[in-house]
Amino acid sequence: MAQKKPLNIGVVGYGFMGRTHSNAYRQAPQFFDLPYRPVLKAICGRNEENARRFADTWGYEGYETDWRKLVERKDIDAIDICTPNDSHAEIAIAAAQAGKMVLCEKPLARTLDEARPMVEAVEKAGVANTVWYNYRRVPAVTLTKQLVDAGKLGKIFHYRANFLQDWTISADLPQGGAGLWRLDVAAAGSGVTGDLLAHCIDTALWINGPIERVCAMTETFVKQRKHNLTGKVEPVGIDDACAFLCRFRNGSLGLFESTRYARGHKALYTFEINGEKASVKWDLHDLHRLQYFHHGDESVVRGWRSIHVTDADQPYMKHWWVPGLQIGYEHTFIHQAADFLTNLGSGEPTSPTFREALESQAVCDAVLGSARSGGWESVGS
Amino acid sequence: MAQKKPLNIGVVGYGFMGRTHSNAYRQAPQFFDLPYRPVLKAICGRNEENARRFADTWGYEGYETDWRKLVERKDIDAIDICTPNDSHAEIAIAAAQAGKMVLCEKPLARTLDEARPMVEAVEKAGVANTVWYNYRRVPAVTLTKQLVDAGKLGKIFHYRANFLQDWTISADLPQGGAGLWRLDVAAAGSGVTGDLLAHCIDTALWINGPIERVCAMTETFVKQRKHNLTGKVEPVGIDDACAFLCRFRNGSLGLFESTRYARGHKALYTFEINGEKASVKWDLHDLHRLQYFHHGDESVVRGWRSIHVTDADQPYMKHWWVPGLQIGYEHTFIHQAADFLTNLGSGEPTSPTFREALESQAVCDAVLGSARSGGWESVGS
Amino acid sequence: MAQKKPLNIGVVGYGFMGRTHSNAYRQAPQFFDLPYRPVLKAICGRNEENARRFADTWGYEGYETDWRKLVERKDIDAIDICTPNDSHAEIAIAAAQAGKMVLCEKPLARTLDEARPMVEAVEKAGVANTVWYNYRRVPAVTLTKQLVDAGKLGKIFHYRANFLQDWTISADLPQGGAGLWRLDVAAAGSGVTGDLLAHCIDTALWINGPIERVCAMTETFVKQRKHNLTGKVEPVGIDDACAFLCRFRNGSLGLFESTRYARGHKALYTFEINGEKASVKWDLHDLHRLQYFHHGDESVVRGWRSIHVTDADQPYMKHWWVPGLQIGYEHTFIHQAADFLTNLGSGEPTSPTFREALESQAVCDAVLGSARSGGWESVGS
Amino acid sequence: MAQKKPLNIGVVGYGFMGRTHSNAYRQAPQFFDLPYRPVLKAICGRNEENARRFADTWGYEGYETDWRKLVERKDIDAIDICTPNDSHAEIAIAAAQAGKMVLCEKPLARTLDEARPMVEAVEKAGVANTVWYNYRRVPAVTLTKQLVDAGKLGKIFHYRANFLQDWTISADLPQGGAGLWRLDVAAAGSGVTGDLLAHCIDTALWINGPIERVCAMTETFVKQRKHNLTGKVEPVGIDDACAFLCRFRNGSLGLFESTRYARGHKALYTFEINGEKASVKWDLHDLHRLQYFHHGDESVVRGWRSIHVTDADQPYMKHWWVPGLQIGYEHTFIHQAADFLTNLGSGEPTSPTFREALESQAVCDAVLGSARSGGWESVGS
Repeated sequence: MAQKKPLNIGVVGYGFMGRTHSNAYRQAPQFFDLPYRPVLKAICGRNEENARRFADTWGYEGYETDWRKLVERKDIDAIDICTPNDSHAEIAIAAAQAGKMVLCEKPLARTLDEARPMVEAVEKAGVANTVWYNYRRVPAVTLTKQLVDAGKLGKIFHYRANFLQDWTISADLPQGGAGLWRLDVAAAGSGVTGDLLAHCIDTALWINGPIERVCAMTETFVKQRKHNLTGKVEPVGIDDACAFLCRFRNGSLGLFESTRYARGHKALYTFEINGEKASVKWDLHDLHRLQYFHHGDESVVRGWRSIHVTDADQPYMKHWWVPGLQIGYEHTFIHQAADFLTNLGSGEPTSPTFREALESQAVCDAVLGSARSGGWESVGS
Repeated sequence: MAQKKPLNIGVVGYGFMGRTHSNAYRQAPQFFDLPYRPVLKAICGRNEENARRFADTWGYEGYETDWRKLVERKDIDAIDICTPNDSHAEIAIAAAQAGKMVLCEKPLARTLDEARPMVEAVEKAGVANTVWYNYRRVPAVTLTKQLVDAGKLGKIFHYRANFLQDWTISADLPQGGAGLWRLDVAAAGSGVTGDLLAHCIDTALWINGPIERVCAMTETFVKQRKHNLTGKVEPVGIDDACAFLCRFRNGSLGLFESTRYARGHKALYTFEINGEKASVKWDLHDLHRLQYFHHGDESVVRGWRSIHVTDADQPYMKHWWVPGLQIGYEHTFIHQAADFLTNLGSGEPTSPTFREALESQAVCDAVLGSARSGGWESVGS
Repeated sequence: MAQKKPLNIGVVGYGFMGRTHSNAYRQAPQFFDLPYRPVLKAICGRNEENARRFADTWGYEGYETDWRKLVERKDIDAIDICTPNDSHAEIAIAAAQAGKMVLCEKPLARTLDEARPMVEAVEKAGVANTVWYNYRRVPAVTLTKQLVDAGKLGKIFHYRANFLQDWTISADLPQGGAGLWRLDVAAAGSGVTGDLLAHCIDTALWINGPIERVCAMTETFVKQRKHNLTGKVEPVGIDDACAFLCRFRNGSLGLFESTRYARGHKALYTFEINGEKASVKWDLHDLHRLQYFHHGDESVVRGWRSIHVTDADQPYMKHWWVPGLQIGYEHTFIHQAADFLTNLGSGEPTSPTFREALESQAVCDAVLGSARSGGWESVGS
Repeated sequence: MAQKKPLNIGVVGYGFMGRTHSNAYRQAPQFFDLPYRPVLKAICGRNEENARRFADTWGYEGYETDWRKLVERKDIDAIDICTPNDSHAEIAIAAAQAGKMVLCEKPLARTLDEARPMVEAVEKAGVANTVWYNYRRVPAVTLTKQLVDAGKLGKIFHYRANFLQDWTISADLPQGGAGLWRLDVAAAGSGVTGDLLAHCIDTALWINGPIERVCAMTETFVKQRKHNLTGKVEPVGIDDACAFLCRFRNGSLGLFESTRYARGHKALYTFEINGEKASVKWDLHDLHRLQYFHHGDESVVRGWRSIHVTDADQPYMKHWWVPGLQIGYEHTFIHQAADFLTNLGSGEPTSPTFREALESQAVCDAVLGSARSGGWESVGS
């Protein structure tokens, strides 16, 4: 491995996403043959004790407590942003301006307006960039993309996706601060739309092409919650639930819904695509299963196939164990890290780039706009 | 049985629904202890040979070829309407005016305007009436109603329902005439909205209460088809697919979708209801299974329960076999016939009455109106 | 229908099976085009009041309280035996000797020795005969038979079947008498072996051919129960659970198990067959679902197909409703009645005949013998 | 982490198991707070180039090509054996005699006779030891153990387990050598019994206690295969399939089956346990799902619960991500490594120890003995 080029990485944020990304960099080289060797140079977080401990646990060479200092370091090639949404833009733009590659946790930003200059910055700087829409790299999801691209489904009629959770039903749950910033509109930008539907939209755009128009409805079931940063009961600014109808450019109809009030569902991201020749269904709770119905099967034995996507000829799986043996959530990040490092070798972009992620941001903006306006909205760009 | 009062029935229409209703009247008395004995006096259909054969097969005493004659017969107590939608109103009103009880296949009519005088007619005549929204009487669906009414789910946040089919994908399928009148807007009034979503809406109103506002999108994927009655290729006037967002009076959000272009689904009517304390899911393809998640379960063993609704203490099942043994589609009609005959004995209405079915008709009208207007519509009445 | 030949039927036993058979005769003619018209001449049971009421409910022309009298009646063509197992032989032999066709509820008898003269009697009399192993006629099970016969599975390696229930776990449940004769060894002959495994064995022999050797283990978990006929606590003589290994003549290995102590299962009859090219799985709790895995499918989309066996080109289904709509338990009896009446027209036997049912009886005997001997036993005949 | 005591590890074998164990040592420290820090001192394998590359990829400090040399090294605390079964005994005994802790991939040995001295060796040396029966540490499996131990199931009536695969159906597959030693009886000792049933037996003994008697049947479907080491077609000495009946000491009945000829199953390890009060079911293809039926649930909503075992209060899961997000196969090894390192701190043994693994070895021996003798065999020790 000594001959492999090092890629020096600085990660900003040591929370949940800091862990998944750090793990990805550590694991990718054992399972993938990569042109670059990721080097964990520094973790960056405001609390020094936490930063030191995180660095120690994950094998970082050091740590920083000010992201601006990290961005300026000469020995860093790439900045990976794992902070809450409200700081993505500032860090990303600074990093790009400093000539660093930029990897950013999704969503790109809180709003389309906030995201546009980020895209401009990385493109102007000409630096490699990617946004961690990790679910694209679940093997069953990647397989879906391949099946649609190969024309197995034929003309697409319907696309529907859900992301259902139930963890915010209790009105006693506070908003804001560590672990709960997703409930704070200032930090998150929106509720389920940016946090969960953004994933559904990213996958849909990737697999089924552009969305042209949307019509949405949102709801905030719990109107006020104690804010952890102020200590006061404050109005809740995020959307607890969001559903929208849409029309794709290819003529198919879309139906999307997300909520954190669907009792019984932990992180149930599901999609179903109906084409003229075939259909597919998937859900995150059983992530290796792809349900596939092929109308061309002999009629008396035609049925939904439950494909256990763990074979070596299915996406990513040859790098892991043997057929029937599963991988998990964290592997989607490992796959994206591996793809990023591989693409770096060949000079190709790693999808979704900032530019591509701008599209899902535009759909999110149109969705939230439609919920406000009460009518159909065109998706801008 | 000799001592039971006869109820003399005349059925109009010997198609698919003529069969399910005839079977219901024949089967109910063996399995339910009923105050009335249904007597199949006459089947009515335009083709004499078909009517005679149908009467012979199903044990009708005789037949008619003109429904007006049937309605006028003194020896008939109840008229059951199994014709295409365009004749429901005329027959129902005439039957009511003749003092007959009226049982009408769903949807009540093609439009709300067409349905209103039907309600007025039966109410003015003071005759027993019911609309065959048969899926209410699937044991698992009735159980859902009982659970919600008992407060097991607590406050409802979300209601979603789908009715997915795939039988009209081929552009070679003609429209109109026997077996295909559902594709002919003149006969059917609408496409999936009146045929399929009407079921979803009926169940939803029954279980979750009134819908106040809707926002819909419809599509006709195959724009023209050969018409079987004219022999010409004609524009298709029905909606092939329809999806809508809605708000219920109880504050919950609704999402409904139906299509006949969902490859792989034959008659997949599904619903899911998420409440504060519990959730339920059901689908018609496995109609005995009710999925139930109860948050009050001990946390380490909490999960969706797959309830095989076949026990004697579950709705309707004590009338059938033993636990574990299934009933089927036709039994929903047997249950409704049994309920109608039982209620007749006690003088109670059999839900849904024409009046109640008017509500689902109003939602269908608002849905189709919203699809045309491109915005939210209030549900009239 | 007037021109169809009547088949005058006398049914012995008005319990659970009396109901399923009576329903079968009543329903078959509306759904199948049959050369014979079944006429319910008489029900026979010891309690006159019950017999009269049953006759009234199910439309029998009359009733008898002594089966010997029924068997002697000149106006009866066929005797259908729905009594507990201990009277099958006597009634069947008398009926055959009187020249009646004989239809007998399964198992044919309590033991192989008891069954042999029954076969001799019907064969000597040359009368049509059949045993109601109804599960053969679940559409998904019949389809399995067709797939295996067509060679879709290739060489068979494994056959496994279970029949799991949980209704006798309580030690307070008495044995003997109406509804509970299945727990009384004198009436039933055996426990789960004759009651449940007999079904599994019948299906297996039909689909996978003869079983040559077996090795079994049985258990009686509750050693004594109050007997309803004597009022005393008496030893339990039946097997509560039975499992056995076996070898089929075609070289495949078999594994069978049944119990009434499998908490959570009501009537879970399942089988799975693994062949060189394909495998199938089925279970009675979701009786329309056939799981089918075909190795010839393209590898990346290979998976178990969940076939919803409700299409017109699948066994029996064209006689019922439309794709996606289910039938239930009772329909298996309707199918057997329809097949019996159809075969009568063409002079063909209706499988399983008494002769064929003797084979499953022989396997049951070998199984119980092996449980006693503690070693492998050959299947006699 | 600097203050943590190092545990210097030498791993023998760089095949599939070499990878899973190496990954376990690398990953455990980031996710578990451990008293020891595993140090990958050396990988050992016969091919120097492969050993060097493996060391490089997985971060070993060095490598050896002779396990005897590794065992003698003073700087190694623990020897981990990942070689084919035929070398387990020799390496383990030498390692114990050299005072090393010993971790051994399952099965402990090829036979009970071969295993006994291994147990004696580690016990005489007083060294920490464990056998990698990794499936115990699937969170859903560990939860099952906890539920049974807590008495949730009550008295156990039935235990059944299967391990079904289909990868050796082709007669063209050779035996012997890298990747295929599992088909070579000299290297493996047995076929599915030692490879797959050993897992099922280990779990069963752990959860349900000792097995007293067994009665088995084995089969070798493909009688001869080309041997990769000799280049000749040679008789196949392993069991391709094995099924057995058994009786547990607690009075429950057991049924076990394994095969590599079950078309459609990749690595389908399943078990089901039926108790008086509750039952559980699990399968490896959907490893996070535990099916649980609790008879104490209110009767109308009683059903099998599909528990998605991903919550922080469920075994091991607090160390990973958030509810709903899965882990995979490799994590079972990480858990065992973490448990071993934790137990080392407190001086407790890590189950299963060599002594405990001897029990499953004894059952395997009795099973194979019974298949030869054709009768019931007592389990020795």
